[in-house]
Amino acid sequence: MDKSLSPPRALVFDAYGTLFDVHSVVELCDELWPGKGLLLSQLWRAKQLEYSWLRSLMRRYQDFAQVTDAALGYACAALGLALDSGRRRRLIAAYRELATFPEVLDALAALKASKIRLAILSNGSPAMLRPLVAHAGLGGLIGTVLSVDPGKIYKPAPAVYRLAVTRLRVPKRSIGFVSSNCWDACGAKSFGFRTYWINRSGAPVDALGVVPDHVIRGLDELQALVRVPAS
Amino acid sequence: MDKSLSPPRALVFDAYGTLFDVHSVVELCDELWPGKGLLLSQLWRAKQLEYSWLRSLMRRYQDFAQVTDAALGYACAALGLALDSGRRRRLIAAYRELATFPEVLDALAALKASKIRLAILSNGSPAMLRPLVAHAGLGGLIGTVLSVDPGKIYKPAPAVYRLAVTRLRVPKRSIGFVSSNCWDACGAKSFGFRTYWINRSGAPVDALGVVPDHVIRGLDELQALVRVPAS
Repeated sequence: MDKSLSPPRALVFDAYGTLFDVHSVVELCDELWPGKGLLLSQLWRAKQLEYSWLRSLMRRYQDFAQVTDAALGYACAALGLALDSGRRRRLIAAYRELATFPEVLDALAALKASKIRLAILSNGSPAMLRPLVAHAGLGGLIGTVLSVDPGKIYKPAPAVYRLAVTRLRVPKRSIGFVSSNCWDACGAKSFGFRTYWINRSGAPVDALGVVPDHVIRGLDELQALVRVPAS
Repeated sequence: MDKSLSPPRALVFDAYGTLFDVHSVVELCDELWPGKGLLLSQLWRAKQLEYSWLRSLMRRYQDFAQVTDAALGYACAALGLALDSGRRRRLIAAYRELATFPEVLDALAALKASKIRLAILSNGSPAMLRPLVAHAGLGGLIGTVLSVDPGKIYKPAPAVYRLAVTRLRVPKRSIGFVSSNCWDACGAKSFGFRTYWINRSGAPVDALGVVPDHVIRGLDELQALVRVPAS
């Protein structure tokens, strides 16, 4: 049997945007600044990613909690929204309790039952990821939670994806990587993982010279794609 | 005299967005897709930058002409605009003939007359920059046009800014770097240049851990800041 076609032994999930809906803060944003919630949430997220890429290239890594806070500050300033320390605290606290997408818990439980190893590989700092995973009740489903933090560089640098190989002790050809962020799926594919892009919004694929192996609409479609054939 | 306060011996300019208005393609975009010009121009530019950062981190450099073309393809697909080969050719051609901002020619001429060395350091490939500089009539004003291309990585990687030091043979503390892209000014500051951020739109400063030394509204404010004191 062609090893490249054998089912992955481990599935590694991106966290923000993939398991957790970063835009679940819209409601709180809207409560603080009526009518501005979606716009603020979108600019906050865009700047958070932008700063992670820029700091990686500048070699000025700062952990994701600090990047997230800096991006919030920029977004509020750009939109003319007064961000006092109370509002800042509430928004950052909300980021530790993001909602999972509706299908996530059931899909992970089914995958776990089929004996595939499950892990998270996230830009998030360990201090952000711990409460996030616990709040969502994913602790019993996800065996390993990996943060980019020890390497002091963000996705899509190859060193980040290599961390999963090293820590899981599974060769990269046997790792399936799942992300809703197309550029993240492309980065993982470029590194050598089999990749599953969750395209919830029907966006075009990013033009980065590699494409994800599979395009799906939700985590519930994974089970059929990674099933071990009956022996 | 404190050398760090002596006037710069060379001024190095970013090209796209700083000397040349990337949104001068709006008119053509609007002609091709009425009412969509500004939106397309903005998404095209945002994706162009995003792809330059992502490819740098993925170590999949492709030259800026290709990145610009890929970003145009994505932007049109995302907005549901049909991009045939004729339209693509016209838009890419327009990118070689971008307009300069109104104050650019006079400001550069005055700086050149005061004997300061002038250079461009751009993400653009040599094949993009040559017609751009020629079309704008900057050939006689800018002594050196440097492309990131030989290093196969984009701004704000420190290696890009180092190229200016090596090629101009001027120490970094004696180089003034001018950009309208705040992240680029921050990257140059992080490398060690004295930096001038042209903030034409009144945007907040990016929160990247370093800030530009000077914030100005246009190139016409440079002359007063870099003047050699009377001896």
